[in-house]
Amino acid sequence: MNKPLYVLNGPNLNLLGTREPEIYGSATLSDVENMCRKRASEFNYEIDFRQSNHEGELVDWIQEAREKASGIIINAAAFTHTSVAIHDALKSVSVPKIEVHISNPATRESFRHTSFVAPASTSVVAGFGINSYDLAILGIVRILQAV
Amino acid sequence: MNKPLYVLNGPNLNLLGTREPEIYGSATLSDVENMCRKRASEFNYEIDFRQSNHEGELVDWIQEAREKASGIIINAAAFTHTSVAIHDALKSVSVPKIEVHISNPATRESFRHTSFVAPASTSVVAGFGINSYDLAILGIVRILQAV
Amino acid sequence: MNKPLYVLNGPNLNLLGTREPEIYGSATLSDVENMCRKRASEFNYEIDFRQSNHEGELVDWIQEAREKASGIIINAAAFTHTSVAIHDALKSVSVPKIEVHISNPATRESFRHTSFVAPASTSVVAGFGINSYDLAILGIVRILQAV
Amino acid sequence: MNKPLYVLNGPNLNLLGTREPEIYGSATLSDVENMCRKRASEFNYEIDFRQSNHEGELVDWIQEAREKASGIIINAAAFTHTSVAIHDALKSVSVPKIEVHISNPATRESFRHTSFVAPASTSVVAGFGINSYDLAILGIVRILQAV
Amino acid sequence: MNKPLYVLNGPNLNLLGTREPEIYGSATLSDVENMCRKRASEFNYEIDFRQSNHEGELVDWIQEAREKASGIIINAAAFTHTSVAIHDALKSVSVPKIEVHISNPATRESFRHTSFVAPASTSVVAGFGINSYDLAILGIVRILQAV
Amino acid sequence: MNKPLYVLNGPNLNLLGTREPEIYGSATLSDVENMCRKRASEFNYEIDFRQSNHEGELVDWIQEAREKASGIIINAAAFTHTSVAIHDALKSVSVPKIEVHISNPATRESFRHTSFVAPASTSVVAGFGINSYDLAILGIVRILQAV
Amino acid sequence: MNKPLYVLNGPNLNLLGTREPEIYGSATLSDVENMCRKRASEFNYEIDFRQSNHEGELVDWIQEAREKASGIIINAAAFTHTSVAIHDALKSVSVPKIEVHISNPATRESFRHTSFVAPASTSVVAGFGINSYDLAILGIVRILQAV
Amino acid sequence: MNKPLYVLNGPNLNLLGTREPEIYGSATLSDVENMCRKRASEFNYEIDFRQSNHEGELVDWIQEAREKASGIIINAAAFTHTSVAIHDALKSVSVPKIEVHISNPATRESFRHTSFVAPASTSVVAGFGINSYDLAILGIVRILQAV
Amino acid sequence: MNKPLYVLNGPNLNLLGTREPEIYGSATLSDVENMCRKRASEFNYEIDFRQSNHEGELVDWIQEAREKASGIIINAAAFTHTSVAIHDALKSVSVPKIEVHISNPATRESFRHTSFVAPASTSVVAGFGINSYDLAILGIVRILQAV
Amino acid sequence: MNKPLYVLNGPNLNLLGTREPEIYGSATLSDVENMCRKRASEFNYEIDFRQSNHEGELVDWIQEAREKASGIIINAAAFTHTSVAIHDALKSVSVPKIEVHISNPATRESFRHTSFVAPASTSVVAGFGINSYDLAILGIVRILQAV
Amino acid sequence: MNKPLYVLNGPNLNLLGTREPEIYGSATLSDVENMCRKRASEFNYEIDFRQSNHEGELVDWIQEAREKASGIIINAAAFTHTSVAIHDALKSVSVPKIEVHISNPATRESFRHTSFVAPASTSVVAGFGINSYDLAILGIVRILQAV
Amino acid sequence: MNKPLYVLNGPNLNLLGTREPEIYGSATLSDVENMCRKRASEFNYEIDFRQSNHEGELVDWIQEAREKASGIIINAAAFTHTSVAIHDALKSVSVPKIEVHISNPATRESFRHTSFVAPASTSVVAGFGINSYDLAILGIVRILQAV
Repeated sequence: MNKPLYVLNGPNLNLLGTREPEIYGSATLSDVENMCRKRASEFNYEIDFRQSNHEGELVDWIQEAREKASGIIINAAAFTHTSVAIHDALKSVSVPKIEVHISNPATRESFRHTSFVAPASTSVVAGFGINSYDLAILGIVRILQAV
Repeated sequence: MNKPLYVLNGPNLNLLGTREPEIYGSATLSDVENMCRKRASEFNYEIDFRQSNHEGELVDWIQEAREKASGIIINAAAFTHTSVAIHDALKSVSVPKIEVHISNPATRESFRHTSFVAPASTSVVAGFGINSYDLAILGIVRILQAV
Repeated sequence: MNKPLYVLNGPNLNLLGTREPEIYGSATLSDVENMCRKRASEFNYEIDFRQSNHEGELVDWIQEAREKASGIIINAAAFTHTSVAIHDALKSVSVPKIEVHISNPATRESFRHTSFVAPASTSVVAGFGINSYDLAILGIVRILQAV
Repeated sequence: MNKPLYVLNGPNLNLLGTREPEIYGSATLSDVENMCRKRASEFNYEIDFRQSNHEGELVDWIQEAREKASGIIINAAAFTHTSVAIHDALKSVSVPKIEVHISNPATRESFRHTSFVAPASTSVVAGFGINSYDLAILGIVRILQAV
Repeated sequence: MNKPLYVLNGPNLNLLGTREPEIYGSATLSDVENMCRKRASEFNYEIDFRQSNHEGELVDWIQEAREKASGIIINAAAFTHTSVAIHDALKSVSVPKIEVHISNPATRESFRHTSFVAPASTSVVAGFGINSYDLAILGIVRILQAV
Repeated sequence: MNKPLYVLNGPNLNLLGTREPEIYGSATLSDVENMCRKRASEFNYEIDFRQSNHEGELVDWIQEAREKASGIIINAAAFTHTSVAIHDALKSVSVPKIEVHISNPATRESFRHTSFVAPASTSVVAGFGINSYDLAILGIVRILQAV
Repeated sequence: MNKPLYVLNGPNLNLLGTREPEIYGSATLSDVENMCRKRASEFNYEIDFRQSNHEGELVDWIQEAREKASGIIINAAAFTHTSVAIHDALKSVSVPKIEVHISNPATRESFRHTSFVAPASTSVVAGFGINSYDLAILGIVRILQAV
Repeated sequence: MNKPLYVLNGPNLNLLGTREPEIYGSATLSDVENMCRKRASEFNYEIDFRQSNHEGELVDWIQEAREKASGIIINAAAFTHTSVAIHDALKSVSVPKIEVHISNPATRESFRHTSFVAPASTSVVAGFGINSYDLAILGIVRILQAV
Repeated sequence: MNKPLYVLNGPNLNLLGTREPEIYGSATLSDVENMCRKRASEFNYEIDFRQSNHEGELVDWIQEAREKASGIIINAAAFTHTSVAIHDALKSVSVPKIEVHISNPATRESFRHTSFVAPASTSVVAGFGINSYDLAILGIVRILQAV
Repeated sequence: MNKPLYVLNGPNLNLLGTREPEIYGSATLSDVENMCRKRASEFNYEIDFRQSNHEGELVDWIQEAREKASGIIINAAAFTHTSVAIHDALKSVSVPKIEVHISNPATRESFRHTSFVAPASTSVVAGFGINSYDLAILGIVRILQAV
Repeated sequence: MNKPLYVLNGPNLNLLGTREPEIYGSATLSDVENMCRKRASEFNYEIDFRQSNHEGELVDWIQEAREKASGIIINAAAFTHTSVAIHDALKSVSVPKIEVHISNPATRESFRHTSFVAPASTSVVAGFGINSYDLAILGIVRILQAV
Repeated sequence: MNKPLYVLNGPNLNLLGTREPEIYGSATLSDVENMCRKRASEFNYEIDFRQSNHEGELVDWIQEAREKASGIIINAAAFTHTSVAIHDALKSVSVPKIEVHISNPATRESFRHTSFVAPASTSVVAGFGINSYDLAILGIVRILQAV
């Protein structure tokens, strides 16, 4: 049996569907979770889907993924731009790591143009709305199958 | 009955009265709380007064305020200068938001001249010592009554 | 009898109520003056209310306030971001000095994020519309009474 | 019948498979083209697959795509970091536009951290090797079907 | 007989009238050409009117103008901000050179605030819509007559 | 009868013809005024031509133009690079505003490459010597007739 | 009896010995703890040894140390470069504070060259591998004995 | 008879002797004037001594000096760091121009380390207290006698 | 028989001898070609000598050189400072690559102080006038003979 | 017998005990030397203790240490922030190298926050007063014994 | 008897009179020395006049001046812009220190606009040609007599 | 008889052949000297070959070369990036001056991308290993013969 895929979500993503819908759309994080499970199951992966507003908790989960996960899909949200701790945690993990964003950060404020997650990640998917998660799962499976 | 005003305080403000009194004065955070309650009661508002050293907890509380508060008064302290997560949380809230500081950050170290809270806030009060909170309550009431 | 409070207004504030009302609102500078007088009279202060488009005139008035005023409330408008002369004049004054803004400069163009007035001021009030002046008077009285 | 998808490739991508294989892998651009055609045909899209070392030619093709394409997938390679002309051309096109990269630019030289393509694109896929193209087709189809 | 005036247009200007009309208006490049011819004929100048999306072609044409033109009017569009090659070509030409823009670049994105064309040009006209070309012809004639 | 065109000139332009003639030429400001009047009269406009070394006076005049002028032609000279007050005054005016320069600032010291006037202006004419004024009048008339 | 020495460790240090051993070596955090206890006991100090991935928890512990510790040895890891909150907490403590690093940050990525811990610390020890902790204890004892 | 020496003083220098005496000393501007007159008379020069808080007035006076003065000694105070207008006025004057400061700006705030006066001046004297003026007169006479 | 040496010349070098002769001298590009052929023939190398104003053409030629050339001598002229595409093409070539300049860029405008060619080249020769090419041939032969 | 440890001291350290004692304390460099000798003798190392105000002499000594020393402890003082020559010399040495500072540079002027010594050193000790040397000897011995 | 005044001259000043005379004039350093001696003798000071191309030697001399000199006049020439060691040496001296320059650095290359000597000096004299030394002596005597 | 060519070598070049051979190769400075002598003798020049770790000594030698040398070939090594004194000395010399580097600084650390030697030199040769010296001699002879 494959180890699960960790799908980790950063601060304020629990508000998905209600917060600034003109940027983030109307689907909720629960919708995202279902979409991920459905897609992953096609490839015999389970999803461990989590959200936290706490940087430390995300670091804990990434560390946990070192042993327990096949790969990590992470939308670090605001922490993308500020967290060296998440960067270091991702660096310590050898499984594939995909950075995901719902919107395209390059079209937003300049402080969102810097990412500490990207240089510690294998790949990036951004700007497809919640479909970014779906593509990330397809992509991480492709990497896992190539190994 | 009006929903309460949330008065949220960031890291190290629990030390108020004991930490660097030449900058922050000798009143304690409990004194600030009492001052806030007294002033708010004149306008029939209750105060939900909290302090945390955890960025994630402040994000949780700001999210909670989306439904439960009439407005937010926030002294994010050190997080003012580093937290995109708090910025994003404040952006998701439609009630009035007042940034408060006890001292005047413009007279301090250069890394305190940047604020991620200000561009997500309605208004700013700084440099009146603990009276900054009192003026912030008077100010937020003025905004709430104008709506 | 208390010396008066000087309320000094910088360039283009004479247009208040007609210029970019989506930013500055529809009240006129005369409305602001009346609001200030009314509030100050509660505390037995008179108001010396002035406006100029000339940096030098504002410097003259700040210098005059060294002897004749109990305190200064200043909305230096555009000069906020460019005038070292006003900065130096304020530094030479020992009475309380409150920087006031109608809008919140942090939400506007980046050249408005620098203030030469703030590091020479005691306190700051911004973003409450014309109520910023009212709160500034309440705040300066609080400082004057504390002395 | 659907209009085709344009897959546009910038300078030096014709060397794919022979140039710096430790970064770009051993597949050739012809392999990429076949992969794209195969995937697109599942959704009844044809692929118009092109490569040029000339910035002007890429601008011509993007302009042509305004009328003739359902969407654009573009790996602008070196021009990603220098071409305002490609940025402007993409801005003039209303069909979906996906920025693609084989490697993850965030892990490379700092001059590759700036993109003029990203702020003019709908979405970004990077770092999956040549599978980035495959995911981009899946992603653009998702966007086209959502319209 | 006077040598003709070269009116050179950079990338994406062939889309004039269809691309972002809220910035560039609805007149086409052909309309601009006619307007230029009409005005130039009043002063007995012919117009050699060209457009290219290729930086190298613009360099070729500027070089050609060294011998064949009375003067150059150039709207380098996107290349304005990136092309040292066009800068060098213009430097090698001794006839009058007028930089033209339809919109006012100072009101647009910050990467449009730098011009490699301006320091190699005699004069600048910007922000009059397509009338910028008409004024440039009037202006270049004034310079040519003054010699 | 049309309202007049205001032609406003900043510091040191009263020295025109005597100051650094290798940059500014030998015509005087009075010559410029006559040239402007003559051209404007062709289109039935009068000229209100003024010069000041005082930033505040220029702000006063721009404010006056809100009611009394058909349009503003402004050569803010040194204040171009330093005055937010003039920027704000121009922003408050809805008539057409043309920035004019005798020389081409892009060929001079780097501190002259920044303009606070340009982003608040409709259009720019620079580098035609005193003919810049003449072209600016032709241009502003074109804009006024288009309305 | 002396109050204990607090040895505080930031994010990802719990992985010591397993994470990037070419940078951090193969000793575990438990080995570090034992080494610290052994050394401190020579001078009659106990060690309170803690690790957290949560910035807020580190702030809590530093505050606790104000009353309960003889001194603080802190390896803030990733938070070194981002945490103003830890900076402020350390500033509020009057006991000696030693910044410790296992590797030498000056030989690593540029974002590790900035430290918010250093300007709030008494002293720094870096680059001795886990012996940095041992030297820090020797050093802090020296400071404590000098008082 | 020699034309007089203009000694021009910028904003807030009228407060000399009362403002921040730890920086500027206790002598008044009137004392400075007397010292200047006394020294100049030794060399048969009169002094035209002026002070203004208005940038425009200083520009007027510098222009006046083009015809009426043997040389200019200028302490532009705050305008030193912000005024391109004074820079341009000084550039238009061919007599010797000495920049004077009472304190040494290099030992003060960083915004005082930039001078627009220096690159337009012949020479600089700073940091001798009010004796800076005395030395400036000795220096300018030396230059005048050398011509 | 040795493969030829490619000598590639960028934009505006076709004007050599006529353009800014005070910087570039009076020899023509044809003179340079002859000088190169003569020198190369001493070592049994032929010269493939080309010039283009088109960045894409230079990229094409560098790619061609991967198979057909013994080495590349490149004077990328203006593209030196702007072309990542040429940088990438050079990176893909394993033969020796010499960057050549006629003048010494360090003595010219600051935008000529950055080179994208240098970090992708083996060696640099600059500032010997057209003799830079001659020395480059001597140098590349030295490298080729050392292999 | 072990080769000696070189303890190298840069400019102005010969003034130790007399220069700015509030920063550097009252011990002299001779006291430091004795402390070093005493500590080193415990581990059977001799000390070669030197001071120079000449950058070149420090480079000479570091080169000498390549053959003659077991390790280098260096307090480069002012040269820390400016000397690439010392950086290069240290890079050429394979024995352990410890950077030492008496005060903590992070709490001083910003030009002391850059170190050319640190990236060429194994380890750093700073801010323990003259005990920094003592700890450096303990640390270097630890490294030497680990080899 | 007064202790002498040290007049210290940095690199290349021994070439005075022969090097770039359009900037530095035709007087030699020996002429400067004589001028200094003559002026100092009026006030009963001797001059200790020295020049060195070695930074370390200048540091040695400044240190020597701590005991042996009444004051220091220093033209550090090129070291002005690069030497923290000279800065630190000057900081350790309590006698008056005057920075002198023959030309006015503000009118020269930008790397000459930074001074490490100025913030460690009492006063500055620049741009009077070799008379800068004469004025510096007059100035330092004024300071010495005021003590 | 021709005056000799001075070949001046900066800090750490005496270690050539032993220091970082992967960058600098295995030839020694003595090998370089022999190569230079041999090549120069073909053209009837002698070589004055020197090396120093002392910036001042290099300045002395450059000054000496003003009278005694036909030309200067200088590899200032680390001083390339920091020495304004060497820059000034070179500026004072009118004979040809060639900057030489063994490696190509553009491929190394960013602090090696700035050169104070280049803007004071006639020409540059870099990246040919020790053959850079040989080519520099060929080049300087070419310049000397052209005069």
